[in-house]
Amino acid sequence: MGEFELLARLRERLPPPGSRVRVGSGDDAAVTVPGGATATSIDALVEGVHFRRETATLLQIGRKALATALSDLAAMGAEPGEAYVAVGVPADLDEDGCLELIDGILAVATETGTTLAGGDVTRAPALTLAVTVVGHAARAERLIGRGGAQPGDALVLTGEIGGAAAGLLLLQRPELATSVPSEIAARLRLRQLDPLPRLAAGQALAGAGARAMIDLSDGLGGDARHLAEASAASIRIDAAALPLAPGVAEVAAAAGRDPLELAASGGEDYELLAALPPDRLAAASAAIEETRLTRIGEVFDGKGVEVRLPGGAILEPTGFDQLG
Amino acid sequence: MGEFELLARLRERLPPPGSRVRVGSGDDAAVTVPGGATATSIDALVEGVHFRRETATLLQIGRKALATALSDLAAMGAEPGEAYVAVGVPADLDEDGCLELIDGILAVATETGTTLAGGDVTRAPALTLAVTVVGHAARAERLIGRGGAQPGDALVLTGEIGGAAAGLLLLQRPELATSVPSEIAARLRLRQLDPLPRLAAGQALAGAGARAMIDLSDGLGGDARHLAEASAASIRIDAAALPLAPGVAEVAAAAGRDPLELAASGGEDYELLAALPPDRLAAASAAIEETRLTRIGEVFDGKGVEVRLPGGAILEPTGFDQLG
Repeated sequence: MGEFELLARLRERLPPPGSRVRVGSGDDAAVTVPGGATATSIDALVEGVHFRRETATLLQIGRKALATALSDLAAMGAEPGEAYVAVGVPADLDEDGCLELIDGILAVATETGTTLAGGDVTRAPALTLAVTVVGHAARAERLIGRGGAQPGDALVLTGEIGGAAAGLLLLQRPELATSVPSEIAARLRLRQLDPLPRLAAGQALAGAGARAMIDLSDGLGGDARHLAEASAASIRIDAAALPLAPGVAEVAAAAGRDPLELAASGGEDYELLAALPPDRLAAASAAIEETRLTRIGEVFDGKGVEVRLPGGAILEPTGFDQLG
Repeated sequence: MGEFELLARLRERLPPPGSRVRVGSGDDAAVTVPGGATATSIDALVEGVHFRRETATLLQIGRKALATALSDLAAMGAEPGEAYVAVGVPADLDEDGCLELIDGILAVATETGTTLAGGDVTRAPALTLAVTVVGHAARAERLIGRGGAQPGDALVLTGEIGGAAAGLLLLQRPELATSVPSEIAARLRLRQLDPLPRLAAGQALAGAGARAMIDLSDGLGGDARHLAEASAASIRIDAAALPLAPGVAEVAAAAGRDPLELAASGGEDYELLAALPPDRLAAASAAIEETRLTRIGEVFDGKGVEVRLPGGAILEPTGFDQLG
């Protein structure tokens, strides 16, 4: 099948475009009328680096590619708008495989109100996805960067963490699954394979007065450090307050790992970490419907990130600094 | 070198952002305030499919990646705005290589007034670039798609064609270079290795009343077919009118190829093909400063693309329909 034919078949699957899109996929470029401000981010996923076809279905790979890209928009408090996807197709991926991958992308697009407004398909030595997402806000000031945290701000976290790292352990070492009920094991694996971007929570936090926000892709330790550095502030996290996903403690114990390590250094939870004035906490909690908000620490003058352990000891969490 | 360190070094090289960019590279997403309408396109380039490091320098690969992406904006008549680049780095490409590649991207960004507003760097089995470009116009109606050509419109072409295909022949078969002066051979190779997007000409054509426009990436035959199909019209091209780049006839003869084949079926010239009312031709020509505009055919009722040869015979040009 040629490129044009595949693109034509892909376009047949597209739902109607969003209200800002005047010309969708199929021309030299998509035409949109954004109004207000836009947040734009690009992310690439490469087979063997970010996913394996042995442990993830093509539908899941497509879903995760768009979901993780949208997580960057969630971290800005943006409303999702358009996505543009370049797919590099290896020789062993046939037409049906391409369509399954695109169906995964389209499923997340539909669930989140995102228009797949453009794309490119090419050959490649390994399955590769590059996803650009564009989100919207009424004004630039309503989009929340990493750099606005101020001393005295409360540090809050959406949802639960450690689940994606525990899910990865379960995928790599299936024998660990006996440590938790099968329903919990399945949920942990999905945290790794099929993450959901916290789009509504991100907009709620932005509306409630969050001053700095980031999504947890590298891990709480590393991403807190990004937020602290961008804000020229220090962050102290109370380990006892961290909301671990159900089963993380058990899987960590079975693997001989510290659950705190999975929570603080494991990546890909795609929860949101935000700093906001303490008097905005109640409003922020009330505005978030789909998950809970947990206060996990504070912002101080100074530099760096500390995690205070229950006994009083201090851990210096490390992020994942390697390429990839 | 870790991802964050490489990204930090890349960001040091960035010139100041354009006026629409509020937050550039380094946060979860770039923040822009577009005003008016935007044109957005994504393109991927993969080593071994779109370029070879044996015949192109990393600087040229970076330049071509952004230039060919911007060509889609030229084809819309958009003013270039922002670019977002994902780079997949193979094991044999070191830090200096990455920086040379980015310098190529930044050179074209500077030459065209484009802000490199975001990026992603990851490992990959082959050097891979995915480039999303965003262009701007005051109103959506000023962005010219492929689908507006009407019977009676004149078909015009910017610049000269066949050069990129002749340049590719010279790169693949260096012995053919004796057929032309070395200066001409060098220029043909650059048409292949270092194409320039016709951004000013695209905006001039849009301003002068072009009703449909496309850039020649697949080749005149294939791209004329895209324009005809999108416009539900037929196109007749006069082969004798085609503006061949200097040296194309000689290189084609030396290679035993038909120069018309290089011009009509060879891709990557990145000239603009546009349809506009005949009474707008003089204004369009006058508005284009950097190159000439040639009338090469007409738009009719019906379907398909014909190329009329000087003797009266009719050629059915084929595009490049294969994946890649």
